[in-house]
Amino acid sequence: MHDVVTLQAAGPHEVRPLAVGAGALLDILRHQHEASRSELAARTGLARSTVAQRLELLEAMGLVVKSGPRASTGGRPASTVRFAAEAGVVCACDLGATHCRLAITDLHRNVLAEVAGDLPIAAGPQRVLDRVAQHIGDLVRRLGRGLEDVRGIGIGLPGPVEFASGRPVNPPIMPGWDGIDVPGMLARFGAPVLVDNDVNIMALGEHSQNWPDCQDFLFVKVGTGIGCGIITSGHMHRGAQGAAGDIGHVRVTGADVVCHCGNVGCLEAVASGGALVRHLAKEDALIRNSRDVVHAVRNRDPRAIAAVRASGRAIGDAMASAVNFFNPSVMVIGGDVAHAGDELLAGLRETVYSRSLTLATRSLEIVTSRLDDQAGVIGAATMVCDTLFEPARIDALAARRAAA
Amino acid sequence: MHDVVTLQAAGPHEVRPLAVGAGALLDILRHQHEASRSELAARTGLARSTVAQRLELLEAMGLVVKSGPRASTGGRPASTVRFAAEAGVVCACDLGATHCRLAITDLHRNVLAEVAGDLPIAAGPQRVLDRVAQHIGDLVRRLGRGLEDVRGIGIGLPGPVEFASGRPVNPPIMPGWDGIDVPGMLARFGAPVLVDNDVNIMALGEHSQNWPDCQDFLFVKVGTGIGCGIITSGHMHRGAQGAAGDIGHVRVTGADVVCHCGNVGCLEAVASGGALVRHLAKEDALIRNSRDVVHAVRNRDPRAIAAVRASGRAIGDAMASAVNFFNPSVMVIGGDVAHAGDELLAGLRETVYSRSLTLATRSLEIVTSRLDDQAGVIGAATMVCDTLFEPARIDALAARRAAA
Repeated sequence: MHDVVTLQAAGPHEVRPLAVGAGALLDILRHQHEASRSELAARTGLARSTVAQRLELLEAMGLVVKSGPRASTGGRPASTVRFAAEAGVVCACDLGATHCRLAITDLHRNVLAEVAGDLPIAAGPQRVLDRVAQHIGDLVRRLGRGLEDVRGIGIGLPGPVEFASGRPVNPPIMPGWDGIDVPGMLARFGAPVLVDNDVNIMALGEHSQNWPDCQDFLFVKVGTGIGCGIITSGHMHRGAQGAAGDIGHVRVTGADVVCHCGNVGCLEAVASGGALVRHLAKEDALIRNSRDVVHAVRNRDPRAIAAVRASGRAIGDAMASAVNFFNPSVMVIGGDVAHAGDELLAGLRETVYSRSLTLATRSLEIVTSRLDDQAGVIGAATMVCDTLFEPARIDALAARRAAA
Repeated sequence: MHDVVTLQAAGPHEVRPLAVGAGALLDILRHQHEASRSELAARTGLARSTVAQRLELLEAMGLVVKSGPRASTGGRPASTVRFAAEAGVVCACDLGATHCRLAITDLHRNVLAEVAGDLPIAAGPQRVLDRVAQHIGDLVRRLGRGLEDVRGIGIGLPGPVEFASGRPVNPPIMPGWDGIDVPGMLARFGAPVLVDNDVNIMALGEHSQNWPDCQDFLFVKVGTGIGCGIITSGHMHRGAQGAAGDIGHVRVTGADVVCHCGNVGCLEAVASGGALVRHLAKEDALIRNSRDVVHAVRNRDPRAIAAVRASGRAIGDAMASAVNFFNPSVMVIGGDVAHAGDELLAGLRETVYSRSLTLATRSLEIVTSRLDDQAGVIGAATMVCDTLFEPARIDALAARRAAA
């Protein structure tokens, strides 16, 4: 079963025979849960003998199991197979500025166990990742599984990450993390470790769970900072340096606040949870963080409502440009400040609909996150599963198994 | 050979056998021009017998020909095959506000013949497309070919287009074209007709010819209007309504000009060729169009230089947001005003580098178009060839040929 651990992807023109079709079969089973051999042959165009041979390989790899005969419409009952989602576990970890959420999922990214708590990212990589490793061990044992069942680890970090290497790149709020080999620091699990920006994994979680058919998808996180995750044609768009979606420093029309980045009028300096707290705390000492702001809005505090609406308008100003540029069909708003709900959305919608082209907003949906605090861990698990079971990779692993 | 004319794409899970591998083989030959059977077997992982059978189908379809034995390093000379780029022609047409350029290319999008001239889009679809059809007939005959050799027609239009249907959608400068079935109006050729926005096809032309390995690519056209073509992971990003890249109405900081769209401070109202002409013509009656502006800049007219630099800065202001959002590695500037070259680029670079995140501009190249006026027709031909020879489609067509 440990074939699944190595992560060397097979290029499309790699010079060795592939078990062509194994990956496509597994892909169907991952999305459909169960199928008969004849259905699989019909849907892939593979010969039935090829389907049978590929399924044997997938069974030998522990990824597919027989699921018993299905009630038939007559004649011999069709024997079906299904994806063995229980064959291993995935560890998904969403690290924020001050908070950590960790989940163990099956290979179909169903959450089996979860913990959440304070964990300041500024404590540095050694202390933070040691704590993460300890939580993984505890949760896996509590599930009655062993560490050898861990098939992959997905981590979201609150800053830019070079996705290919899993190393943070000049992260502004993560002292001591720049260039750190995060996968290397979790090598003890002997499983692949994938690392991405927290906003990207939230986008992936929300998209895969609630909008799987949306081709042009944006997720805007409004928390301590402001960032955007971009999914196009089903794929995460990370950009040349993995910096795509970094909208926190887009200039807001008419604003003159100095940002920590050195520019003036940056969206983050005007409209983030941090900016709201700074603004409201001047006259209300009870407001210390984004949650307090949301609480004040829910209590119908007029100053807090006005401030959150103004934030929504500023974010809408930046997103109007993004809407003209990208033409999404869905924009999901998440992060702590999104808990203010309608007040934030109203301001945001007001500016997006007034400043974007009517063609681009004709059928645009702007909604708050449904996964809410779980978006990050669901996204991290999705990132791991999609990589582990990428069809070309499964073709290559099945071929290796066939040769063995 | 007429297999290539129909355009029903085969879905990945379509319920009939595919000649798996035929498309992949053709794809290699399209990019490499010539290969031996053993090279093809090694690069695809297909069995040599499968390679031989698929190549026979591709030969029967007229898409592959034997290219004679290659000088060998000893033993029997390897017999090679190549893509039959001469097996048909593609018609590529770039329609602007007032101008038309039409090229006939081979199936490898090499230009065989070309015409360009005035053709106002406002004359309406019937007159414009009749003229296009007439030019196609003339050029094809002049090449000694027949209309049955036309394998596909690609058209660029100066407005938003619903790509799937080839119909313009509320195009602001194309009276009479809204919702028109452009492919239907060229059905007389019996070949597929693909229609896209002119900026998209320019982006595709420039990308495929000069930056084929760039994963995160933007093309900004600065002409009568301003628009942007977006290519991510090698694919055109068109957006939910095909409106992606419509940056002409992004709001420019500090500008108060009223735009024809009804908003204030739109990029197009401030920085396009049209805006430059309106601004400069007030004091210089000789300036009537973008070309006059470029001419004045080349003659070192200080007012024209200042105006073009200011345009560059305004475009840079909008593109700084796009750079933070999309994180491209290459941004190409094309269109009439791009002929002003360094003066436009200097203003644009100044703002992009000052307003974008340093991470996002670390290795960003901002350059003018190398294909220049030919970008549109090369892109239209690329759009047609990439669609005709899409591997899944070739697999399906080859299977149909095998069954016949």
